[in-house]
Amino acid sequence: MPEETYVDVLIVGAGPAGVMCANALAAAGIHVKIVDQRPSKVTSGQADGIQPRTIEVLQSYDLAERLLKEGRQLRQLAVYNPNSDGVLARSGRLLSVSAPTARYPFVVGLNQGAIESIFIDSMGEHGLTIDRPIAPASIELSDSSEQLADPFSYPVKVTLNHLDTPGKQTIVHTRYVVGCDGAHSWVRKAVGITMDGEQTDSIWGVVDLMTDTDFPDIHNTCAIHSTSGSCLIIPREGDKVRFYVQLSDSDVLDPITGRVDKNRMSPEKLLEVARKILHPYKIHEPKMYEWWTVYIIGQRVASRFSVNERIFIAGDACHTHSPKAGQGMNASINDTHNLAWKLVQVLRGRAKTSLLETYELERRKFAQDLIEFDRKYSALFSRKPSTIDDDEGVFHEAFSSVIEISGGFVSGIGVHYASSAITNETHQQCAPHLIIGERMPPQIFVRAADGRPYEIQDILPSDTRFKLLFFVGCLTEERVRELDALSNEMRDPSCFLQKYGYPTEGTAQSMFSIITIVSGDKEDVQFTRVPAFFRPHWSNALLDDTDITRSVGGGAYKRFGIDPNTMTLVIVRPDGYVGMIAPASALEDIDSYFAAFTIPRKAVLGIQLPQV
Amino acid sequence: MPEETYVDVLIVGAGPAGVMCANALAAAGIHVKIVDQRPSKVTSGQADGIQPRTIEVLQSYDLAERLLKEGRQLRQLAVYNPNSDGVLARSGRLLSVSAPTARYPFVVGLNQGAIESIFIDSMGEHGLTIDRPIAPASIELSDSSEQLADPFSYPVKVTLNHLDTPGKQTIVHTRYVVGCDGAHSWVRKAVGITMDGEQTDSIWGVVDLMTDTDFPDIHNTCAIHSTSGSCLIIPREGDKVRFYVQLSDSDVLDPITGRVDKNRMSPEKLLEVARKILHPYKIHEPKMYEWWTVYIIGQRVASRFSVNERIFIAGDACHTHSPKAGQGMNASINDTHNLAWKLVQVLRGRAKTSLLETYELERRKFAQDLIEFDRKYSALFSRKPSTIDDDEGVFHEAFSSVIEISGGFVSGIGVHYASSAITNETHQQCAPHLIIGERMPPQIFVRAADGRPYEIQDILPSDTRFKLLFFVGCLTEERVRELDALSNEMRDPSCFLQKYGYPTEGTAQSMFSIITIVSGDKEDVQFTRVPAFFRPHWSNALLDDTDITRSVGGGAYKRFGIDPNTMTLVIVRPDGYVGMIAPASALEDIDSYFAAFTIPRKAVLGIQLPQV
Repeated sequence: MPEETYVDVLIVGAGPAGVMCANALAAAGIHVKIVDQRPSKVTSGQADGIQPRTIEVLQSYDLAERLLKEGRQLRQLAVYNPNSDGVLARSGRLLSVSAPTARYPFVVGLNQGAIESIFIDSMGEHGLTIDRPIAPASIELSDSSEQLADPFSYPVKVTLNHLDTPGKQTIVHTRYVVGCDGAHSWVRKAVGITMDGEQTDSIWGVVDLMTDTDFPDIHNTCAIHSTSGSCLIIPREGDKVRFYVQLSDSDVLDPITGRVDKNRMSPEKLLEVARKILHPYKIHEPKMYEWWTVYIIGQRVASRFSVNERIFIAGDACHTHSPKAGQGMNASINDTHNLAWKLVQVLRGRAKTSLLETYELERRKFAQDLIEFDRKYSALFSRKPSTIDDDEGVFHEAFSSVIEISGGFVSGIGVHYASSAITNETHQQCAPHLIIGERMPPQIFVRAADGRPYEIQDILPSDTRFKLLFFVGCLTEERVRELDALSNEMRDPSCFLQKYGYPTEGTAQSMFSIITIVSGDKEDVQFTRVPAFFRPHWSNALLDDTDITRSVGGGAYKRFGIDPNTMTLVIVRPDGYVGMIAPASALEDIDSYFAAFTIPRKAVLGIQLPQV
Repeated sequence: MPEETYVDVLIVGAGPAGVMCANALAAAGIHVKIVDQRPSKVTSGQADGIQPRTIEVLQSYDLAERLLKEGRQLRQLAVYNPNSDGVLARSGRLLSVSAPTARYPFVVGLNQGAIESIFIDSMGEHGLTIDRPIAPASIELSDSSEQLADPFSYPVKVTLNHLDTPGKQTIVHTRYVVGCDGAHSWVRKAVGITMDGEQTDSIWGVVDLMTDTDFPDIHNTCAIHSTSGSCLIIPREGDKVRFYVQLSDSDVLDPITGRVDKNRMSPEKLLEVARKILHPYKIHEPKMYEWWTVYIIGQRVASRFSVNERIFIAGDACHTHSPKAGQGMNASINDTHNLAWKLVQVLRGRAKTSLLETYELERRKFAQDLIEFDRKYSALFSRKPSTIDDDEGVFHEAFSSVIEISGGFVSGIGVHYASSAITNETHQQCAPHLIIGERMPPQIFVRAADGRPYEIQDILPSDTRFKLLFFVGCLTEERVRELDALSNEMRDPSCFLQKYGYPTEGTAQSMFSIITIVSGDKEDVQFTRVPAFFRPHWSNALLDDTDITRSVGGGAYKRFGIDPNTMTLVIVRPDGYVGMIAPASALEDIDSYFAAFTIPRKAVLGIQLPQV
């Protein structure tokens, strides 16, 4: 008899999307099971780059420090083309990431296994480990509409095979399944979700190795277009380097089947290709080869990202594309970063099930944009090189311009979620330069009480709470009276803060965090003048001014376009994206925002919460 | 029969000086025993502030991160005086630390126990724990001149009592003893070192508590001079606050004995004194009292800091003074930071015993300066307050000016070690603004190979090595030829680098680290042009230019006054202080510097190294 077990969420696959999801849910106290068919995690190769927005996301889970310690920081992108004599030469160096508001202006190079470890160690602190080697054998979703409508039912039944013990099975009854099981996703196939798009005819090889060379940009990211082909260089941690090289059909295709035959390639052969492209620079005999592979790029997006908002797919299971823009792992991590807090709020009985629909809405649109971008970028990359006095000698400029324009996309900083239940653009004019649907940009404020500068993103952790940033303007006597009046209104049981704000502020599962941002000079502002309601703790009162050394901080009201003569509320979603901006006194509008996806306290307290 | 054991260094006392010493020695592989008479470490009260230079020192041991995470950052010093109506009011706010080159422009407030834990956990990773509760019972130093002259002998015998097992003793034979056993040091008394100086008649009380108040600077450091007395406020971690209040004789002295009678005081009474001083601000009933004490300030310096350079004393055992300038723990940590690397080099047989004489030379001078400063500062503090239109109404200005002038001293940034065997000022003119005898100031360089900005202090860890910073100027063809020639000279066995540079560069016990700093534009400089000798690893080649975002780095040659048309060597001591500057080609002068305290390789290799 197989063992039977009940969990809130079953995650299939412990790659980047899976472990991000598992860690976020476990940190929020959700009962999770995560399984993976591999007997142990990958230790080399695979995805390699963490983009600036993903670093911000990791930081919001307090995980960036280790990433920054272990990884290489890729700050420069060197572009090489044939010079007027046809000899490979540097055309110039660009910023690795063209995203002016990026908090971390670089890409972090670190192997996928090391990145997974960061999440795995963190979830271990919450008592969660990966069950492996385990693979799903069957999945059944209840067809009872009653059961599907009940947020506290367990409508999904998954049978798991223990791969190390033939015949051993576990049956898991779960509320939700998240399939993070890669490009060949078993979950996706099992629930019949199709992939839209097609395979390209572009074949690439990739090899990780350690070597010496006289190539002066070996420690920078490089885009190289020589008369012998194209190559991407990505420096790795521990003095390793990755070469992506374009291959021809004859290099790798089996002439009979027309399929890629990995046996026709080897790391040595891949290096030979790279050497030709990098001529006249010399690459010495490698000290070690770490990993290599060959692939044809497919560009596909799943037709749906969920079935009945009970079974979700995320990461490579939803989208496949070329690795050249360094997006794969980033898209995956951001998929489940988007999904996790929504699952938590629904599982806690605070949010309506419809909140989960915004996952596909937001992330499928992103995946489609990604494929679109990848098409353009890959095509540019596979183009024949040109010399400077060639007809097509504008290549470097064209390439630089694409890098520049696509910086927001590649870095992840530019992601803009469309209007939805959780993204309400009605009052955008209250802060015209703080874009609703985009992530809260980095900005330094000082704490009013002690003048310590703080990066606002560090006050917006991914802790499942909505952050209410009250930009209260200047603390005139009139403003203090207005704030007192507003705090009285907000204490009323009919106010959104009381209706949806449970349990009490400051407990682990609070719905809201209140942060108050005063406009004014640090010499004049006394934090004790901020009404207590707006500073549940003294550290929650911030000031938009420079610190005492006058070296950091200040200018936020102006930058965001917020009038200090008004009181403006900025609502930041639990994932760090601006959800709504409104006049702080527009309580009805704010109520409508939350009413669209939140369940009032009264209703929740009437429900018998199940034991976990 | 007592157990007998042999160690390289016995440390008596596990306060800040002791654990700093133990951790530094253990990290260098020295065989250390550290004992303390307390059954467990202090968990509250005691010293509270880590000054900017001490933060830099902790960072050089990779320990600052945790300090910054756990502690409060005190950035502002609010000064209060009676206003023209005689009512207490803020005269202004100053920088907590007036030290323009401080890398960390603040003081960290954290209790002594938490700071000790940082060192204790770190030394635990090197396999070292504190033996407690253990107190020394006797100490004997051999009088055999032969034994004293032999660096590998064990001339000190210390008998230890296990306080938890009456009668149990351990006999420790050791090469060196470091007494870090506080103001009432048993070691100091046992070896007959006297304290010079005297007790003041200034009596102060200190109390740590948690409370609410309408005093608007409660989260800042405050210097308060009211008509009811003087008070210092120091915010602590965890929303606690410390009050230092000046007491009158009648508050605490026993009229018969004339001695402080702690029974006459209580935390409640201390708070009452603070309340009077802070009137008209209100301090609510505390939520908790954490710690309190009462003391008369003594201002004394030990007459010697060592006996025969075999038994040393450090920290409070050497100097006592008022806590008001927040120096105690800082002086202690910096004492053993200064001593540890010297012990290591002597114990490894690389340095002459005379190197150890520089400990007293450098740190006793510092202690004397500290007492001198403390006298002025305390007197200023105990002065009667003045109102603005009072004759003495210049108080705030006078106080501000003292804070400003003394910033270098208080912060620790201004410490300047005098000329000695390890501080050679001969060629100061090669870099007139990089002061020999002071700590290497923070300065951002970019790595030539990948443009990543680095703080130079992070490339100068306290790893017992001398850092050879070759400022090689611009990489002209002529300069590259000169560097090639110089590297040939440096490969010669007669060169200081070969004579004293053992074992091989890059191993844990190397004597030297080579760092090369090129002057030039990042677009032009190719790190591959730096001769291999000057970049044993690619990351050792730095560039004095801004990073690719043009936001950090650059200007160091100009700032230090180094001519990029020359090749200049800056030698940074293992403790981060500039030891010598010279033309890189002045190999004889450089040799003389090291010859003054280092034992040539040949001599060392001839010695039979003892087994540890």
